[in-house]
Amino acid sequence: MAAIKVHGNPLSTVTMRVLATLYEKELDHEFVIVDLRAESRAITKYIAYEYADKGTQLIYQDPKKMAITSVWMEVEALQYDKIATTLGMELGYKPVVLGISPDATVVEENEPKLAMVLDIYESRLAESKYLGGDCFTLADLHHMPIMRFLLGTQIKKLFDSCPHVSAWVADITARPAWLKVLALQSKQ
Amino acid sequence: MAAIKVHGNPLSTVTMRVLATLYEKELDHEFVIVDLRAESRAITKYIAYEYADKGTQLIYQDPKKMAITSVWMEVEALQYDKIATTLGMELGYKPVVLGISPDATVVEENEPKLAMVLDIYESRLAESKYLGGDCFTLADLHHMPIMRFLLGTQIKKLFDSCPHVSAWVADITARPAWLKVLALQSKQ
Repeated sequence: MAAIKVHGNPLSTVTMRVLATLYEKELDHEFVIVDLRAESRAITKYIAYEYADKGTQLIYQDPKKMAITSVWMEVEALQYDKIATTLGMELGYKPVVLGISPDATVVEENEPKLAMVLDIYESRLAESKYLGGDCFTLADLHHMPIMRFLLGTQIKKLFDSCPHVSAWVADITARPAWLKVLALQSKQ
Repeated sequence: MAAIKVHGNPLSTVTMRVLATLYEKELDHEFVIVDLRAESRAITKYIAYEYADKGTQLIYQDPKKMAITSVWMEVEALQYDKIATTLGMELGYKPVVLGISPDATVVEENEPKLAMVLDIYESRLAESKYLGGDCFTLADLHHMPIMRFLLGTQIKKLFDSCPHVSAWVADITARPAWLKVLALQSKQ
């Protein structure tokens, strides 16, 4: 086992600097990719339950409604997130920020996968305004950050081709709480 | 003082998800922007000193040479990094990854600043192969991650207009250690 462990992400400039140094020094090291994505969902759930009586109800008190919402939260975490992040990486971050060509095979593989997930969403959103039911919940909120990446790429057309998905996107991205997050970004 | 503290970066999807939840819950919170940049330089210095006898010599043993190298490390950390990161953010990350328009005023302010720093580098690199002296050191290595961002934008022209800087960029970005870092990225 390597004596030096680096916890990070190979796409972060901070991690890149440390890894370049280790390679220059020819030091044996273990690189542990940190995936903060799952963690962020644990935090949002904690906040939603702990402060159930404040602001927007992001969960249902009714156990049956919450069970349905949880299913959609799982769909987001286990299906949507991986596909959407991969496409965002290939079409946004890699070509422009890192100057690496997108991997066409990866894009071709993931586009139809995302289309399939959005088809399932389209059916769901034809029968209820939000994924969990008639109220906006964490199941919707968790989609937003990576959706923002994708809407700036060729992937937008997949969202545009589903009318109920498009209406849902327009609705959730116009929420005042979300606009506050975006306002923080423009100040950066 | 707010009971909830969020440590993160407003441009990270993970942070965005947590902040959106806090705003939805109308919870008072303190947002602490984490700047990992300074930290990464402390780590590379530690590695270079602790493993001085392994791989590439990234520091000088000679105190006078090391003092000069330290000056250039300071120039990178205090001048180049802030300007280069700002430009990379405006011209790469914001428009493409986040879909926000670049702030033209910020770009116009920082382009001439970077040109001025690169002019200083041009004079230095006319008299020595690397910033610290005749050997590749941390003073050069620290520049690489953000340089990679900039070379994919309109800022490339500033580097191209300085022949010694361009030769230095070509030299340091072709180092096998750096190519290993890039190889890790393409696998992502």
